[in-house]
Amino acid sequence: MRYPSQTLEKLVAAIASLPGIGKKTALRLALHLVQDKSDKASVLGNALSRLKDEIRFCIHCHALSDTDECSICQAPSRKNGVLCIVENIRDLMAIEDTASFHGRYHILGGLISPIDGIGPADLNIETLIERIDKEGIEELIMAISPTIEGETTSFYISKKLAGRNLRLTTIARGVSFGGELEYADELTLSRSISARIPYKMGT
Amino acid sequence: MRYPSQTLEKLVAAIASLPGIGKKTALRLALHLVQDKSDKASVLGNALSRLKDEIRFCIHCHALSDTDECSICQAPSRKNGVLCIVENIRDLMAIEDTASFHGRYHILGGLISPIDGIGPADLNIETLIERIDKEGIEELIMAISPTIEGETTSFYISKKLAGRNLRLTTIARGVSFGGELEYADELTLSRSISARIPYKMGT
Repeated sequence: MRYPSQTLEKLVAAIASLPGIGKKTALRLALHLVQDKSDKASVLGNALSRLKDEIRFCIHCHALSDTDECSICQAPSRKNGVLCIVENIRDLMAIEDTASFHGRYHILGGLISPIDGIGPADLNIETLIERIDKEGIEELIMAISPTIEGETTSFYISKKLAGRNLRLTTIARGVSFGGELEYADELTLSRSISARIPYKMGT
Repeated sequence: MRYPSQTLEKLVAAIASLPGIGKKTALRLALHLVQDKSDKASVLGNALSRLKDEIRFCIHCHALSDTDECSICQAPSRKNGVLCIVENIRDLMAIEDTASFHGRYHILGGLISPIDGIGPADLNIETLIERIDKEGIEELIMAISPTIEGETTSFYISKKLAGRNLRLTTIARGVSFGGELEYADELTLSRSISARIPYKMGT
């Protein structure tokens, strides 16, 4: 591609360095920003330039935050002895959106995956154990994806915590609400049958 | 969606203001930029902040340029009396990529489209006519998309230029090279037959 302007070429290269954005899309976005009458380019430019200075990671749970201690860790109402461990901030946001969890979180920052060279030392597991001892956690919910890496990570954490007076739970797994049985995958369906639960109205 | 940080929320909103990018993609890109170890966020931020100061439009052809006169309009080798009019910079770049046109361009900045409220006065047609008279243009190639708006624009320009000693041409239309006849649309195929050309080896 021949660019009529080096400024444009540099901008396209910078946009195309983002994951999932190719050269064509990057060019389309760059031209939109150039021709845009409003102030989109400088608004976005300022947000990006200040990003690394303004964003922090919460010293307790490792979530993104504007302050050293995130709003969830600061809230007295959420210090109820229940800690939910998640892989990343997107999972935290998904659970927060349900508004059905009222404890605090701990972000692992990944899952154990020997094939990608990610071991327990690369995750926030040491700080998790410190928190459990220090904050008097009574229940630890492992809200981790049911993949091989997720199961490995849950297993590792449960081993590390053996011997503590702590209730370890995991999020329920089974057929989705609204999902049709015939389209559920075999493993989920077979586990849903073997891990069947007593029937209650509204469950 | 509940954001754990206002900085993140503002960045997601700025990214999602781009065309074709939704909230989910914006969040994915924002989190990538936050967690990226290299300097992507500030590189992109700087490119965007300086964009409006550094980029210009060529005073002759209205293409994007780093200087007041773009590199194509500056090149003496391209002052050959042939001018190619295109709708926008993307079309100019597409033709430049073929390396088969050696004249100069004129960017209209759109097509006449009464339904969108775009009339001839909104396009760079006045400056086109000035250039033709001033620069001694002998041939004008109308490289405009064969849509209703494109045909209207070509017709308007040809009317405006009536009476001048100027060869008006349009890019050839027909079945694509490598295209299979059975998949060509009816209009293209019927026009290809009525506008058939003498057979030459290699055509």
